[in-house]
Amino acid sequence: MKEIWPGVAATGSVAAMTELTNRQIVVAATPEGGLTEADFRAQDGVAGEPGPGELLCRTVLLSIDPANRAWLQGRTYRDQVLPGQVMAGLVLGEVVAENGTGVPVGSYVTGDGGWQEYSVMPASRVQRVEQAGDLAHHLGVFGMTGLTAYFGLFDVGRPEPGETVLVSAAAGATGSVVGQLARTHGCRVVGITGSAAKNRVITERLGFDAAVDHRSPTFAADLKEACPNGIDVYFDNVGGPVLDAALRRMNVHGRVVCCGVVSQYDTGSPAPGPAGVPGLVVTKRLRMEGLLVFDYAARYAEGLAHLAGAVRDGVLVDLIDVVEGLDNAPRALMGLLAGENVGKRIVRVGPDRVSS
Amino acid sequence: MKEIWPGVAATGSVAAMTELTNRQIVVAATPEGGLTEADFRAQDGVAGEPGPGELLCRTVLLSIDPANRAWLQGRTYRDQVLPGQVMAGLVLGEVVAENGTGVPVGSYVTGDGGWQEYSVMPASRVQRVEQAGDLAHHLGVFGMTGLTAYFGLFDVGRPEPGETVLVSAAAGATGSVVGQLARTHGCRVVGITGSAAKNRVITERLGFDAAVDHRSPTFAADLKEACPNGIDVYFDNVGGPVLDAALRRMNVHGRVVCCGVVSQYDTGSPAPGPAGVPGLVVTKRLRMEGLLVFDYAARYAEGLAHLAGAVRDGVLVDLIDVVEGLDNAPRALMGLLAGENVGKRIVRVGPDRVSS
Repeated sequence: MKEIWPGVAATGSVAAMTELTNRQIVVAATPEGGLTEADFRAQDGVAGEPGPGELLCRTVLLSIDPANRAWLQGRTYRDQVLPGQVMAGLVLGEVVAENGTGVPVGSYVTGDGGWQEYSVMPASRVQRVEQAGDLAHHLGVFGMTGLTAYFGLFDVGRPEPGETVLVSAAAGATGSVVGQLARTHGCRVVGITGSAAKNRVITERLGFDAAVDHRSPTFAADLKEACPNGIDVYFDNVGGPVLDAALRRMNVHGRVVCCGVVSQYDTGSPAPGPAGVPGLVVTKRLRMEGLLVFDYAARYAEGLAHLAGAVRDGVLVDLIDVVEGLDNAPRALMGLLAGENVGKRIVRVGPDRVSS
Repeated sequence: MKEIWPGVAATGSVAAMTELTNRQIVVAATPEGGLTEADFRAQDGVAGEPGPGELLCRTVLLSIDPANRAWLQGRTYRDQVLPGQVMAGLVLGEVVAENGTGVPVGSYVTGDGGWQEYSVMPASRVQRVEQAGDLAHHLGVFGMTGLTAYFGLFDVGRPEPGETVLVSAAAGATGSVVGQLARTHGCRVVGITGSAAKNRVITERLGFDAAVDHRSPTFAADLKEACPNGIDVYFDNVGGPVLDAALRRMNVHGRVVCCGVVSQYDTGSPAPGPAGVPGLVVTKRLRMEGLLVFDYAARYAEGLAHLAGAVRDGVLVDLIDVVEGLDNAPRALMGLLAGENVGKRIVRVGPDRVSS
């Protein structure tokens, strides 16, 4: 191991050169209406130097999430990502250099590295990853989406065995895990997706009891038929008209887990709020509650243990949907927003290991 | 005491005659758009005979509530009140005859007696009232509205001392109690009403820290100024654009108590749902939860003890707004929906006691 910057331990390709080319995808413009490739541009920069307490990570995998789109439009639970900035995003990376962090070079970590080949992150802001099987699972079932499903379902939704749990974007990264966890918990599980093909995946491969296509002209009637005892917990990833329809079928004292609003992220003409709010919330005494997984950071180990147990028991399948190459990240996000993915969408930016 | 029907104990005017004229207000039509007097008609019927386990009550006071309007339009938490039926409503009545109930003739009870001078109710469906001061308080602070305020604020809203509590319809029966309870709990309390006169009542007489007029053209800015630290608990009695504005000012992990939707009950063109749902619910991790006081029936004694203590301590004023005469009940409800009341609106139907 050599020192290329004073005090910085490094290895592999980093140790072999003083300047590392760093391919980056930068926000070119704040989108107007639907996202287009013109809202991004690629550029070749130079990898930064880790300061004290920082890591230099080589991006292996990049997590593509619906929330990415919301970050481009304005302030959410984080500041807007502005034109000229590297697009933000969760990465799984290999530590290739570190500066007094105690994190060994060669470790894998996840963190907000952004859409680039190399990122400098404070060690305090990354999660160590102990590789178990395919690295992609650490962005899927063992990552933020799996943990979101776990805490959203059990802490916010609180289903009882025998209750009906409805989940939208049910073939997506979070929804597919929610449905499988609820089924294992003894619930009747109904999924909503946007295609017959996805509905086959969730019923035949993931064991959902029923599936409904929100694009069908008979959606409302199909939903009623799929939930003959009403809905006790609705895990909402989409908002919009699907939320509206679910509210009408909720049982008294039902719970709506407000996890995401993917139907509204990529549009210049957002739908009005659901007509059933607050009227149906009052008459049915519903609880609608928002969820952000970072609030549960102190309990990640509990969630990961539950998820790992379910995978080990063979009752939880992690569907992964990989797009190759950093330059395809904009198209990967556009496709995600259009619903083309099945399972967790990930962009592979580099190989798991680079020989040194 | 005589028996006028076999097995039925009765007293006073009931014992004095075999048939009692019973003035009734009947639903004439399901309203289209705003409520009008033509949606009701008065008729003279005959008081019914209490069957086994039933009471015959003489109505003293009739509670006028925003929910009355919703009952006319369709199914809510109860069946729609249909044309031809006596209008439903909570009454405080004197028991003038009973049939094996164990409830003494001459007792006061509250129950769903409807808009009429005499009603027959099962003893199992009424609440006994031990008169303490003005009977009207048993429909106000010691009635369903006071209990709604207590359970809604403390069980659903769960404010901490020092937090900001916002309440709409703040000069109304429920809102005025919510604000006073929250102030006594150590919260900053901001009320929303529809007039400067009401705002003076809630700040000068009830001790609210600030008041905002939702009809003001500067409402959004006024609300922001009145809540410099944001809103932690919003007790929503109105829905519509006021809910929309409150959602924008909610703090992370804020709570919205969904108690009523008075802005939407009396209109043929309901507002769309709030634009911030579910987007702001997700990003701010809000909890919106509906409330119906009947769910807390097992804990009414706890609530009444808290409310009685606050009245005794002089920190809770019960504003009562009386309209005289059963025939004025339709106008009393129309006026309530237009916001003309200050405090709990009640129609006086008869005297507290009738000499026998």
